[in-house]
Amino acid sequence: MEKLYEGKAKILYPTDDPEVLLTQFKDDATAFNALKKGTIVGKGEINCTISTALFQWLESVGISTHFIAQPAPTQMLVRRVKIIPLEVVVRNIAAGSLCRQTGLVEGQILPFPLVEFYLKNDELGDPLLTSDRLLILDLSTPDQVEELKSLALKINQHLSNFFNSCQITLVDFKLEFGLDSQGKLLLADEISPDTCRLWDHTENDPREKVLDKDRFRRDLGQVEAAYQEVQQRVLEKIASEKP
Amino acid sequence: MEKLYEGKAKILYPTDDPEVLLTQFKDDATAFNALKKGTIVGKGEINCTISTALFQWLESVGISTHFIAQPAPTQMLVRRVKIIPLEVVVRNIAAGSLCRQTGLVEGQILPFPLVEFYLKNDELGDPLLTSDRLLILDLSTPDQVEELKSLALKINQHLSNFFNSCQITLVDFKLEFGLDSQGKLLLADEISPDTCRLWDHTENDPREKVLDKDRFRRDLGQVEAAYQEVQQRVLEKIASEKP
Repeated sequence: MEKLYEGKAKILYPTDDPEVLLTQFKDDATAFNALKKGTIVGKGEINCTISTALFQWLESVGISTHFIAQPAPTQMLVRRVKIIPLEVVVRNIAAGSLCRQTGLVEGQILPFPLVEFYLKNDELGDPLLTSDRLLILDLSTPDQVEELKSLALKINQHLSNFFNSCQITLVDFKLEFGLDSQGKLLLADEISPDTCRLWDHTENDPREKVLDKDRFRRDLGQVEAAYQEVQQRVLEKIASEKP
Repeated sequence: MEKLYEGKAKILYPTDDPEVLLTQFKDDATAFNALKKGTIVGKGEINCTISTALFQWLESVGISTHFIAQPAPTQMLVRRVKIIPLEVVVRNIAAGSLCRQTGLVEGQILPFPLVEFYLKNDELGDPLLTSDRLLILDLSTPDQVEELKSLALKINQHLSNFFNSCQITLVDFKLEFGLDSQGKLLLADEISPDTCRLWDHTENDPREKVLDKDRFRRDLGQVEAAYQEVQQRVLEKIASEKP
């Protein structure tokens, strides 16, 4: 099959239906704008499975996503969208670049969930955008920014509750959105330990509690085990909700 | 005299009056967060003189500044203020870090004057702050941010007109503000070719037209001549307005 697009963690293929694409999740892991590269064995399958579970669960609470089906463990059928070239990051607790850039201490609970927009541009290093820069770059209208922000906060509320009941703190996460052929705004990309910071409630040790890609970024070891742990808890929670 | 504080371009001394400080302008030049260092001969005197002229002129149009007097060519008496640890940058035309960070082309006229806030913190590299980060860092209240923004836009209007009549385009500039002992907000620091991007109307060549610290940053040569040229035009304009 001819690739439509190959990203750092996924490959997109066309299907017979022009409105539908097939996403192949890879085991490849990158960090620091691809300066660090590696493999997390089983990641493709785990991230595809977690994303499937979370997209379906979000749909059940009224969030529109690009998800259609998971035809194979590492494959997801999704609605074709035009991706808005923004990374929408929601932060509940200070971590990562927020701390490096502002001097805030990692682990500090933020006074309100912070929604931030970053330009999806590897060459520029995905820079943080102020609301004025968003307008000047003509990436979205003020109305669209407000819509994305309120949708991101709603998703944060749902996902925080979900992970909380898995004994996991949703520290922060990155979302991408797209517009389908009818112009409908859909949550796209993936929701996984690659795109979320997830801290285990049951661990106090600041290194041990990390259940996400920071284990790879910061060479904390047990990367695969952490991804498996998240998958297991997410699937158990989903199973427990089934009637 | 005992120094109160020595910065990259100025030294602050106490005076007999606790409400008044003496600023000594230096010839030292730094760029790229002090990675590049050098000397611009005569800069201290020129920047002190230009700042004096512009502070006095801004006072005459209703802007409150920390300026009191220029007792010697490189010295300025100023009202003692508690500096708000923010660099308030106003941009009329895309240049510098805005272009590096967003990919906007240098020289592009912005659709509206952009007011940006940067954290004054050398260790962190003076990071750009979104309005939410401003609030979370507890650096100012939403009201104070709005006051700073509207004051910066007013100063931009005045200074753009002033420089325009000197045949100079005010591309962008950095302001600092402080609160005096009565809590009054005053424009502080300096306004000079160190803190403004200034382009000569009478030159079309993108290197020749530069009349500011970019000549030093980008090794364009004729640094001293550019600073002298700005001083001369500013003083001529001021003199022409005297009754």
